[in-house]
Amino acid sequence: MTAQTAGRDRITLDADTPDTVRLGVEQARAIGERALKRIGYPDDEARIIVDQLVDNALCGYRFAGLPRILAIAGDEKTKQARRPVRIVHETPCSALLDGGNNVGYIAAYRGAEVAIRKARVNGMASVGVYDSYYSGRNAYFVDKIVREGLVAFHVASARPRVLPLGGARPALGTNPICVGFPSESGPVIVDMGTAALMWGDVMLHAHLGEPLPEGIGFDEAGRPTRDAGAALRGGVVPFGGYKGYALSFAVQALGLLAGAAIPRGQVQDYGFLFWVVDPKVMLPDGGFESRMSELVRRIKATPRQPGVDEIRIPSERASRERERRREEGIVIERKVIEALEAL
Amino acid sequence: MTAQTAGRDRITLDADTPDTVRLGVEQARAIGERALKRIGYPDDEARIIVDQLVDNALCGYRFAGLPRILAIAGDEKTKQARRPVRIVHETPCSALLDGGNNVGYIAAYRGAEVAIRKARVNGMASVGVYDSYYSGRNAYFVDKIVREGLVAFHVASARPRVLPLGGARPALGTNPICVGFPSESGPVIVDMGTAALMWGDVMLHAHLGEPLPEGIGFDEAGRPTRDAGAALRGGVVPFGGYKGYALSFAVQALGLLAGAAIPRGQVQDYGFLFWVVDPKVMLPDGGFESRMSELVRRIKATPRQPGVDEIRIPSERASRERERRREEGIVIERKVIEALEAL
Repeated sequence: MTAQTAGRDRITLDADTPDTVRLGVEQARAIGERALKRIGYPDDEARIIVDQLVDNALCGYRFAGLPRILAIAGDEKTKQARRPVRIVHETPCSALLDGGNNVGYIAAYRGAEVAIRKARVNGMASVGVYDSYYSGRNAYFVDKIVREGLVAFHVASARPRVLPLGGARPALGTNPICVGFPSESGPVIVDMGTAALMWGDVMLHAHLGEPLPEGIGFDEAGRPTRDAGAALRGGVVPFGGYKGYALSFAVQALGLLAGAAIPRGQVQDYGFLFWVVDPKVMLPDGGFESRMSELVRRIKATPRQPGVDEIRIPSERASRERERRREEGIVIERKVIEALEAL
Repeated sequence: MTAQTAGRDRITLDADTPDTVRLGVEQARAIGERALKRIGYPDDEARIIVDQLVDNALCGYRFAGLPRILAIAGDEKTKQARRPVRIVHETPCSALLDGGNNVGYIAAYRGAEVAIRKARVNGMASVGVYDSYYSGRNAYFVDKIVREGLVAFHVASARPRVLPLGGARPALGTNPICVGFPSESGPVIVDMGTAALMWGDVMLHAHLGEPLPEGIGFDEAGRPTRDAGAALRGGVVPFGGYKGYALSFAVQALGLLAGAAIPRGQVQDYGFLFWVVDPKVMLPDGGFESRMSELVRRIKATPRQPGVDEIRIPSERASRERERRREEGIVIERKVIEALEAL
């Protein structure tokens, strides 16, 4: 298993075996930060990256955890020069950040910080970040914003991996959409890719030699394929037919608003956009959080189909798993730790 | 065919028959405005409603055109008292509007006007509208905003028609999402419901006695059904599985930000939300429109699957049809005009 397989949902690793180690949160953090510092990240950036990776592992996104450090270390962009993330343009309610070729874990984090600061003062904010790459789990940034009592909308455009409807070549990124809301019992977050399968999941299928589900993958000549390796050189379709295509298109366009085309003149490139609104500027009675909790309660109380135990709310599973693993610890493969210590 | 069937995409009526009349835009406007004034709408509101209905007809949304006036006339809410739409709370970048039980064609239009005004001054705006109902085609409002050079995100929550994943009863509205962008050749707009089938299309199936596609409809007891009439008393599933469910959930929550729960204390109710951003506050070089056009060109230039004539961009078909029908006129059933004249 390589760290390249990061991103697959719900592949949890909870059983202790001779090949695994169970780590407390602080132990996992220390291992991750040491590894990142060895490959040149300063203390504060190592801390920011590891905070997300540990949170991803706690929430059950196994390959989005510490193994990602191996992927960061091996990434071509990581080996290129980077400059500090900086604001290149701003108004009271907006900011544009040059990501300085920093990995998205850092660049999007800085964007989220600016968005929080501006939304607190002005009631809302639009913040874009360009010249960056892989930012990990969008819900991590949105969770951070929502914990400040704010509503957050966050999209990330990327380089082409996804075929437009009727197309034989990728023209859109995997283009995730994330929207988060404060409630009386914490953040409630919708986080989804607009591709039919996460790119990390295509990588995982290729690594394991498993066939892709029918109708998802296309090879580099644009022919349908169930061979995940061939799809890695081609692309995948959007989820949900023309509606998913339309959403993916919208995210690519919102990436332009975040400056995606600035560093390389390419309109199909990375752009991280945050729109943040303080619910108090909308609802003078301050009742957003209680209404959000009531909406969650009402949807969960919907009569169920036979055999369905529970109506699930977006992010509910991840929140529960985070609480559980904070107690039980994170299970990591011994060879991942060895690889991290050898960086 | 009743006016209740409004909303079905792409059902165009272009052939002249003994049962149809072909109208120029001004003729269609005059018939619509006369009918609305007869049922009590003042001049300016009649003009606003008809402007959308005629635009919908021009764009090829046949049942979203003048026949909707018959539906408005017959709606229970139209018969209840209405108050002028008014701003009940505002900050420099936000506003909350009490829709005063006015039909959404009017209330959302007023919301869009306020959003444009505030975004022009402050660079961005968040505007919510509550205590309203059916607002028609969201792309109409977004088109209006985008023609001012602004980027617009618009969602509309509604009363339950859509089953949550695993549910046996509706708990979510049909909850459309609309995002629009200015380009060098005019607005480019993504407009989609998060239900697997538009509610107007379920009505149309029921009216025509046609079975629904498999797996979409559920009756009032929560059992799967292909009987559209039974689904009207039950509900439909979201599009695209759990991702569509998650998006529908997000729209319902964004409706709360627009004040959906204020008039009746119900968290599952109508709320129209507009987020509008002036691209100039994000991109100091003012290059958004040209980049947007470049994105459209690049996606359209994607190599195609065998048998595919063209890669379509969202809203491209509607824009073309609008241009064509401006010349050729709108074809309307004679009995619809008779019914309008008899109001």
